[in-house]
Amino acid sequence: MLETLGKRAKAASRILMTATTDQKNNALTAIAAAFEANAAKILAANKEDLAAAEANGMSGAMLDRLRLNDARVAALSDAMRQVAALDDPVGKTLDGTTRPNGLVIEKVSVPLGVIAVIFEARPNVTAEAAALCLKSGNAVILRGGKEAFRSNAAITAVMREAIERTGLPADCVQLVTDTSRESAAALMKLSGYVDVLIPRGGAGLIRACVENATVPLIETGTGNCHIYVDDSADPDMAVNVIYNAKVSRPSVCNACESLVIHSAAANEVLPRIKAKLDAAGVVIHGDDRTAAILPDVIPATEADYGKEYLGYEISVRVVDSIEDAVAHIMQYSTGHSECIITQSYAHSQYFLSHVDAAAVYVNASTRFTDGGEFGFGAEIGISTQKLHARGPLGLRQLTSEKYLIRGNGQVR
Amino acid sequence: MLETLGKRAKAASRILMTATTDQKNNALTAIAAAFEANAAKILAANKEDLAAAEANGMSGAMLDRLRLNDARVAALSDAMRQVAALDDPVGKTLDGTTRPNGLVIEKVSVPLGVIAVIFEARPNVTAEAAALCLKSGNAVILRGGKEAFRSNAAITAVMREAIERTGLPADCVQLVTDTSRESAAALMKLSGYVDVLIPRGGAGLIRACVENATVPLIETGTGNCHIYVDDSADPDMAVNVIYNAKVSRPSVCNACESLVIHSAAANEVLPRIKAKLDAAGVVIHGDDRTAAILPDVIPATEADYGKEYLGYEISVRVVDSIEDAVAHIMQYSTGHSECIITQSYAHSQYFLSHVDAAAVYVNASTRFTDGGEFGFGAEIGISTQKLHARGPLGLRQLTSEKYLIRGNGQVR
Repeated sequence: MLETLGKRAKAASRILMTATTDQKNNALTAIAAAFEANAAKILAANKEDLAAAEANGMSGAMLDRLRLNDARVAALSDAMRQVAALDDPVGKTLDGTTRPNGLVIEKVSVPLGVIAVIFEARPNVTAEAAALCLKSGNAVILRGGKEAFRSNAAITAVMREAIERTGLPADCVQLVTDTSRESAAALMKLSGYVDVLIPRGGAGLIRACVENATVPLIETGTGNCHIYVDDSADPDMAVNVIYNAKVSRPSVCNACESLVIHSAAANEVLPRIKAKLDAAGVVIHGDDRTAAILPDVIPATEADYGKEYLGYEISVRVVDSIEDAVAHIMQYSTGHSECIITQSYAHSQYFLSHVDAAAVYVNASTRFTDGGEFGFGAEIGISTQKLHARGPLGLRQLTSEKYLIRGNGQVR
Repeated sequence: MLETLGKRAKAASRILMTATTDQKNNALTAIAAAFEANAAKILAANKEDLAAAEANGMSGAMLDRLRLNDARVAALSDAMRQVAALDDPVGKTLDGTTRPNGLVIEKVSVPLGVIAVIFEARPNVTAEAAALCLKSGNAVILRGGKEAFRSNAAITAVMREAIERTGLPADCVQLVTDTSRESAAALMKLSGYVDVLIPRGGAGLIRACVENATVPLIETGTGNCHIYVDDSADPDMAVNVIYNAKVSRPSVCNACESLVIHSAAANEVLPRIKAKLDAAGVVIHGDDRTAAILPDVIPATEADYGKEYLGYEISVRVVDSIEDAVAHIMQYSTGHSECIITQSYAHSQYFLSHVDAAAVYVNASTRFTDGGEFGFGAEIGISTQKLHARGPLGLRQLTSEKYLIRGNGQVR
């Protein structure tokens, strides 16, 4: 069953691989119009998903992620048109040389082939991931959360029909209809058909993919992000950036989860930070030195420093040097986004070179680690591994490369 | 035990990550001198390996790969100096932009971190892989074949001592002393310490890594390489390139394993190819249409077309169009190197765009897929996967990237 999907995806990818930018953009704009024309059908399917989810006791935040309405369907159409407007990442000359023997070697960008995306119950991800794969010339196999199955089926049916109408294979976009755990596990092992697997979701899903996948995988999303307040930090900036990074959207991977602060700054800055975080309802878990300054904090355990709270909580550690700060961060970092607030040139350079993460910040909120904020136009996730790509995965990161070698009979 | 190696490698990689080019080059030239000064010690260890391997009935070709002598140790020193002379791939600005809000985003190349290399009984790989990792700022954990263990231990001991003498941590280079299958399996799962695993060896080793690894992996080396002789091909060039690609070094992954030929060229070219291949002792496995032209060929089975012979054998299929040729190639290709011999511009373009492989050739031998031939200076293997890098893995491919973001208090 999954092998059939794999074969179809591979066949579609062979055609999509050489599709022109115009063909791909035509498909995307046709999908945008089709979402508008079929909004009622998509909303009806979503309503059934919502009713079933509510009956099963799904929580409010999850229900909100699952919910579609007229505005959200319109946003899907907008997203399709925005992806159509982005630069085609395929067919770029990345490098080139003529060798002494006359061989002309050119490195060009090509699609990855077939991308599998495993994600949770967010129907907008279905459309957006499929659009990014289509624009980058990749066939996609989507395996969404079972709670969103009817919505996903309606969305992909509309997409497939629109794609086919513009002359590309409907199988450029396929949905796994079996939403059991077994089907996800089988997709992770679909070697020979799936070129790359991108899981989007919580730490448990990522872990399951790392443990079980035999296809190449891009780990995404876990962000235990730190902000280090240096002894030279501007206190106002420190308070402002920490507040933004913790509170503006606590449920996302680029939110700040841990504060590391120099002992020379702690007496002045910690009470000010606490006052702002208290007002937002953020619970502080601090070490003994934090507690000496902020008597009513909860003691931080080892587990706190390793935790991605994804909510209104933060851990705090007081250190005596930038070296200790970096050592702490490298011990607990998930390699997502790390920040220093400093006025020292030397400390900014030390932090940038010694912290090993996808995004290393000086004097700005970690919340900027995002494809849109980086100027990529869109993203399919944030890579936290070192192979292939780090940070936001935009269209360019959904391509591979190949060498074209033109000769006139050279032998070795 | 492996976890101890992993911890040491991670600690060493943190220091090596920020080492200057001079520091790394000093270590490499010190290693070169140390190989010369300790040649007798290395050769004595190799002699013990050879004696044990002969006693265990190792074949001549394998023994030759295992054997070191004065010239080969001198070649190791040369290789160290050559790697020292190569451009440092770390710290390059790869991309950069200033965002509308004033954030300055710079993408720079950084080391991968800790690289594990699993390979077979070739002591030169030990030194060369370690040198490439060192130059690219990566700590390496080497796990070589047990038949070469004494040689590998001697080589890595010399390297470690030289590295430490120049002020970098000896643990930049570590050898797994347990050569059991279990230790290889454990290395594949050393998540948290190993950033990338590169297996170098036969299809069985690669398969074992793909099936079992939980660390990010670069598949290397399997090459079922095809040459397609188009109806417009220059017959002399076709004969010459095929002979070179098959016979110049049949045991390597970029050797030609299969010939696909247009029916309009087959009558003239196949007998000429056969005459040259016969003289070199190459066994031909052909389909019925090949047999109609070359009556004494062995019938080709389905298995033949999927086989990487790595020896004096080749499969042949006759087709009626370039489309059929490409379909055949894409069915059996391992994504390594594929070639068309043609005088048609349209067919050259069709082949380059429709064949999905690391290296796609027009009118040149597949034997050129090699780091040295591509101008990379050296390679650690040939990637046949699409993630991260395809084709020869030189120093540049042993790096990752990170985003440095400099702001002045931006929040989102």
